[in-house]
Amino acid sequence: MRVALIQQKSYPTKQQTIDKTLYMITKAKEQDANLVILQELHQDRYFCINESIKNFDLANDFENDLKFWSKVAKDNKIVLVTSLFEKRVAGVYHNSAFVFDSDGSLAGKYRKMHIPHDQGFYEKFYFTPGDLGFCPIDTSVGRLGVLICWDQWFGEAARIMALKGAEILIYPTAIGWFDSDSEDEKKRQLDAWITIQRSHAISNSLPLVSVNRVGFEKDDKNLIDGIRFWGNSFIVGNQGEFLKQASSDKEEIILHDIDLKRCEKIRQIWPFFRDRRVDFYDELNKKFLS
Amino acid sequence: MRVALIQQKSYPTKQQTIDKTLYMITKAKEQDANLVILQELHQDRYFCINESIKNFDLANDFENDLKFWSKVAKDNKIVLVTSLFEKRVAGVYHNSAFVFDSDGSLAGKYRKMHIPHDQGFYEKFYFTPGDLGFCPIDTSVGRLGVLICWDQWFGEAARIMALKGAEILIYPTAIGWFDSDSEDEKKRQLDAWITIQRSHAISNSLPLVSVNRVGFEKDDKNLIDGIRFWGNSFIVGNQGEFLKQASSDKEEIILHDIDLKRCEKIRQIWPFFRDRRVDFYDELNKKFLS
Repeated sequence: MRVALIQQKSYPTKQQTIDKTLYMITKAKEQDANLVILQELHQDRYFCINESIKNFDLANDFENDLKFWSKVAKDNKIVLVTSLFEKRVAGVYHNSAFVFDSDGSLAGKYRKMHIPHDQGFYEKFYFTPGDLGFCPIDTSVGRLGVLICWDQWFGEAARIMALKGAEILIYPTAIGWFDSDSEDEKKRQLDAWITIQRSHAISNSLPLVSVNRVGFEKDDKNLIDGIRFWGNSFIVGNQGEFLKQASSDKEEIILHDIDLKRCEKIRQIWPFFRDRRVDFYDELNKKFLS
Repeated sequence: MRVALIQQKSYPTKQQTIDKTLYMITKAKEQDANLVILQELHQDRYFCINESIKNFDLANDFENDLKFWSKVAKDNKIVLVTSLFEKRVAGVYHNSAFVFDSDGSLAGKYRKMHIPHDQGFYEKFYFTPGDLGFCPIDTSVGRLGVLICWDQWFGEAARIMALKGAEILIYPTAIGWFDSDSEDEKKRQLDAWITIQRSHAISNSLPLVSVNRVGFEKDDKNLIDGIRFWGNSFIVGNQGEFLKQASSDKEEIILHDIDLKRCEKIRQIWPFFRDRRVDFYDELNKKFLS
């Protein structure tokens, strides 16, 4: 499996942003990628930077978006992981990943389960939490454990994907810094973001890819200055070891050949799955135990 | 809370090993430590390096060991985390942590829940898996989430400790390299060991300490050459950031002041506990989902 991560900026219009994505997909295809992964909500600026009713209109073309990306997958003969603003019905919108196989068919979808809501990341305003659970998606290149951004902080999500046979963990993401934070705090945040995801690779003996956007996006409501998306898209192997990592400020295509068979060897030398104490894990389904 | 981690070697006899531990505890106390943490099975060499019936005799003095370490805690006026070979009854032995409060009273015990069994680490031969679950231990310096070594690879254990109000995660450990492994593999193993534990600090917004032994211990059955325990005992903060880290080959006392109140601030800016999807976590109590 040759995976390509498309780390990019958003441009003034949806069309310009998509044009850049298409250009980068073409470049990835020229280098024989057969699995291409786009960043979270890659068609637009990160509109959840504030709460605005008019932003729901961004989901009005959702059905056409699906057809469009299906054709992109088919035309390029690639398995394509997209991240779209899903309009399910009036009043029910999701932050969803749609995976198209290389013939353009819809291989499956994942609706973001863990929804953040913090200064600059007002997702609970827009998105109904996913109701499909954590289910890997079967494709012609493998069984993909697709999760989205905030999910990456929850080991439970990665674990369930692994228990259902995911062969790789995939995180389209939109995360960045506030310029007002100290350099130390920025370093802690980036390091924590990388570390928590590497830990899912380690604990499940799976390769993992995370695709983040870059560039500064201004808050058009001026509640904050804006978000400086920190890039750093990366690929780690079954022991959490770095295979590739992008810069914090440039558009980049990160490519790597991933051997899905290595999982078996690592799980034999690090047999975590053998030893899980499932007889004592029921407490994990509580919010707190006081 | 001023915590001290005692990273040490094992010596030819139990008495010599304990004498060194006592010397290091005295040094830690001179620097005003009020919580001292010893490494896994600190009274002896790591006897699980092979399977030998005669090693069960090492637990014969268990009741006296308890009295001894209780007195050490009382004499030094410290909260003391010990790691002992617990003889519960003929045929039932545990790998257990006993925590003594600064008045010498037994604050609580934790029996290792996840038991490894691999070349050089034959613990399933010696230890009955713990039957007490994951329960933090209340002491005069705080509520301690004590886990042991192999537990560190399982996010489930750390999470349940946190859900039960643990204020710090603590891992007495005995882990090392085989000299026959490549330098790359050694690096991946050490890095994975550090990363997985940092991830528990991050996902639970808790400080974390890990105490590992150092030194080469030969396999007296010559099934393998031996284990080179890699030290690297460390302390990280609530965002997984490094506060202190020991060397890979020297006996060391690592001291640090930990602010248990910082957890609240971090959980407010990173509200992971708010967003856990406990309605979809029941699957975690399965060995595999096929």
